[in-house]
Amino acid sequence: MTSCATPLRLTRKQYEARVPQLREDLVQLQVKLKQSPFKILLIIAGYEGAGRGEVINTLSGWLDPRGVETFAFQEPTDEERERPFMWRFWRSLPTSGRIGIYAGSWYTEALREESFSHKTTTEISRELERIQHFEKLLADNGTLVIKVWLHLSKTAQRHRLHTLESDPSTAWRVTPEHWYHFRNYDRIARTARRILKETDRPGATWTVIDAEHERTRNAAVAKLILTSFNAHLRRQKTVSRAIDKRAAARSLQPVGLQRLQALPLDQTLTPLEYEMKREKWLGRLNQAVRAAHAAHRSVVFVFEGWDAAGKGGAIRRLTSAIDARHYRVIPVAKPTDEEKAHHYLWRFWRNVPRAGMVSIYDRSWYGRVLVERLEGFATTKEWQRAYAEINDFENQLTDHGIIVVKFWLHIGKDEQLRRFKERENTPYKRHKINDEDWRNRRKWSGYEVSVGDMLALTDQPYAPWHLIPANDKRHARLLILKTAAKQIETSLGAG
Amino acid sequence: MTSCATPLRLTRKQYEARVPQLREDLVQLQVKLKQSPFKILLIIAGYEGAGRGEVINTLSGWLDPRGVETFAFQEPTDEERERPFMWRFWRSLPTSGRIGIYAGSWYTEALREESFSHKTTTEISRELERIQHFEKLLADNGTLVIKVWLHLSKTAQRHRLHTLESDPSTAWRVTPEHWYHFRNYDRIARTARRILKETDRPGATWTVIDAEHERTRNAAVAKLILTSFNAHLRRQKTVSRAIDKRAAARSLQPVGLQRLQALPLDQTLTPLEYEMKREKWLGRLNQAVRAAHAAHRSVVFVFEGWDAAGKGGAIRRLTSAIDARHYRVIPVAKPTDEEKAHHYLWRFWRNVPRAGMVSIYDRSWYGRVLVERLEGFATTKEWQRAYAEINDFENQLTDHGIIVVKFWLHIGKDEQLRRFKERENTPYKRHKINDEDWRNRRKWSGYEVSVGDMLALTDQPYAPWHLIPANDKRHARLLILKTAAKQIETSLGAG
Repeated sequence: MTSCATPLRLTRKQYEARVPQLREDLVQLQVKLKQSPFKILLIIAGYEGAGRGEVINTLSGWLDPRGVETFAFQEPTDEERERPFMWRFWRSLPTSGRIGIYAGSWYTEALREESFSHKTTTEISRELERIQHFEKLLADNGTLVIKVWLHLSKTAQRHRLHTLESDPSTAWRVTPEHWYHFRNYDRIARTARRILKETDRPGATWTVIDAEHERTRNAAVAKLILTSFNAHLRRQKTVSRAIDKRAAARSLQPVGLQRLQALPLDQTLTPLEYEMKREKWLGRLNQAVRAAHAAHRSVVFVFEGWDAAGKGGAIRRLTSAIDARHYRVIPVAKPTDEEKAHHYLWRFWRNVPRAGMVSIYDRSWYGRVLVERLEGFATTKEWQRAYAEINDFENQLTDHGIIVVKFWLHIGKDEQLRRFKERENTPYKRHKINDEDWRNRRKWSGYEVSVGDMLALTDQPYAPWHLIPANDKRHARLLILKTAAKQIETSLGAG
Repeated sequence: MTSCATPLRLTRKQYEARVPQLREDLVQLQVKLKQSPFKILLIIAGYEGAGRGEVINTLSGWLDPRGVETFAFQEPTDEERERPFMWRFWRSLPTSGRIGIYAGSWYTEALREESFSHKTTTEISRELERIQHFEKLLADNGTLVIKVWLHLSKTAQRHRLHTLESDPSTAWRVTPEHWYHFRNYDRIARTARRILKETDRPGATWTVIDAEHERTRNAAVAKLILTSFNAHLRRQKTVSRAIDKRAAARSLQPVGLQRLQALPLDQTLTPLEYEMKREKWLGRLNQAVRAAHAAHRSVVFVFEGWDAAGKGGAIRRLTSAIDARHYRVIPVAKPTDEEKAHHYLWRFWRNVPRAGMVSIYDRSWYGRVLVERLEGFATTKEWQRAYAEINDFENQLTDHGIIVVKFWLHIGKDEQLRRFKERENTPYKRHKINDEDWRNRRKWSGYEVSVGDMLALTDQPYAPWHLIPANDKRHARLLILKTAAKQIETSLGAG
């Protein structure tokens, strides 16, 4: 946390002499930013009466408004309440090359809650951890996060509120809440100090700016943006974009690979056995999903597996148990250009289902640690930190009551070859196979290592991996129905 | 409106023999569709008890769920209620290559309302017109719209409700509402006939399917999709993709061009005059926007004008009067690939502001009838029908209480040349000018014709065009503040 050494107060004359250059520099910053692969988030927090609104309006007047968006978060809408807390912030993130100014932010709640509510210390720590994690994720992705705390001494706060109240044109801005804040200055200051301290992390540091003097304060914030941007540009040049193919091929946690390779693939089911048991489990699953819907609990299914492992067929059997109005299958292909201008998890955040709805992912965010790792689409650092990012993402979903059911459909290498050939020889299946499938197949052992690491590093009690032996389609499909029904039933029972 | 000649009832055996082929054909249809530049919307409407849910679930089981999404519309969310009625349908539209199945749709409300509410005949006609217009717009854009009305005679409805009720496993599906519907069968039938008749238009015809016999009904709907798709593919080949450059250069409504050319460009304002009046109008505008915010009325500003006409500068002066938390500037550049997979208005629908917020468009949907017309990015038919589409779009906004303020910033050809040269000679302005600007300049007279047509054909009482002489920047900026404040004041007064 850096405190700006309180600079000499700017006289009106000094200020007016300095502003044109600041504005010019800010607009030039925006020109450079527009061509850069990252965004700027500017969080303006601080004491009541410290002039957050004025700082933001002044800055907005200086910047080219076409590249800036200002966010204030009022009461969450009902669509927001149906999703995890961070959803509203994810959906509001600007794309690369733009500036987001946060009048309210993920801190608003924390600041308010710790002061006024009865949350336990653990809950608060958890909330602050979540914030830390969110900012780390953004910073790791290249986002420049600038956090400003507008400081006002107790005397200055009183003085400011009195000044505002005494002028009829500004008196309306002082509410009883302001005076409440003033009376509780010491307690709020303690809270603020704690929050600032715990969330002051590399890549997302706080800068405390003395807000007593308006002109000096405005110039200091502008200056901070300029220096942070230049430092960020320099830092970005040193960030490793290295892709270490050997590291990609090396297992991080061999226990996962062992688990994968130990999976027996010889279980089969006769058509008759399948017929007999299918109806039962379709019914159980149907009831479980209906119960989840009634309880406003969403379900997210993740289907991962080898090419030709039967994901599509399994999804069809699964959906046949669910009312068509309640599910959505999301096939994950190449990201759109809008999605590319965001963190890789953004496209999944934007698709978090409404309460009571079912999302079924045909491939998923795990692409980051599978194909992107193997093909070098992600840098070594990127895919290595993705395990923690994914765990946190799923943790946020499940914390919100969403049930996350993950399947890895496993087939043997021989079986895959048989299916590839069958596809090539069947006219209406030919579209399902292409050169890429054959290329991936040649990297089988590399993928095996990646799958193993994924299983070892993202198998969490709140979102466990289910390994499905899928050499026999009937066996796989039934096991999926059964596993899905059971996990949903258990989650509802526990809920 | 076509009624399927009631086919012979399918026996279970016939049905089971036919289904595998239907499924295969449907999946093959999806493979073709995926590579096609259009989408399919399938609307399933009909009498209570006619089995809309069952038809949809059956179809969903037959189709590859990865290319389908089913929509049911419950109570609008608060985010939806803050926008025009059609917003929720626009936001749910699938992208090209996909199928959207509508369990509920834009008809649900119409069907319910006309039956049960006290809307006037005019209101209903207006609603149906809006629906017609929406479907026409989609169909014109290549969307295949299939509308199915599941018909059930009064006797069949009674029989069906009794059957459902007598089976404990389905009895829960019959609600008092169903019986209410049954008792009012004749009235509801009249309403339905009227709605079907009025919304049965080329490109969006209704097909009535007898729903009495389930198997026959399911097979008929599947068959309808297949035949409609094939007919659509054939029809798409004959759609004119012609770009008639001479038509693009010819004025449709010369009165607009005359209005443009008659605009005096010699008004100026001294710095002193500007200073004196600016504060007054900034204040008026600030108050007007605050009043609009308090009344939950949104404002949409559209800035169009010649390159270098001063849109950016004017927007900055405008935004300086508005709280940064309440506006958003939306620069309109090339559409993203996701936006390209939709109707050109989709990107604007998705950005319709929440209640009380201000959106400022730096260029807008008018690109369709300006640059896209001139450069041949839109076919002749496309830009020619865009005037009506845009009028309807703005009409929906204003009907919802949104205030639409449109500016054309006009400068002379000489003045533009002077500004281009100045930009080229000023280091920090150089990024604002490129080859494209010079290319556009060479097409000045073509653009003049397009602008004239735009002014003539989209100047509506509910969303008038304001022509701003902008050779003198001060004069232009003040006039914009003044015009904006006045239009908002008038709209609020009238509201």
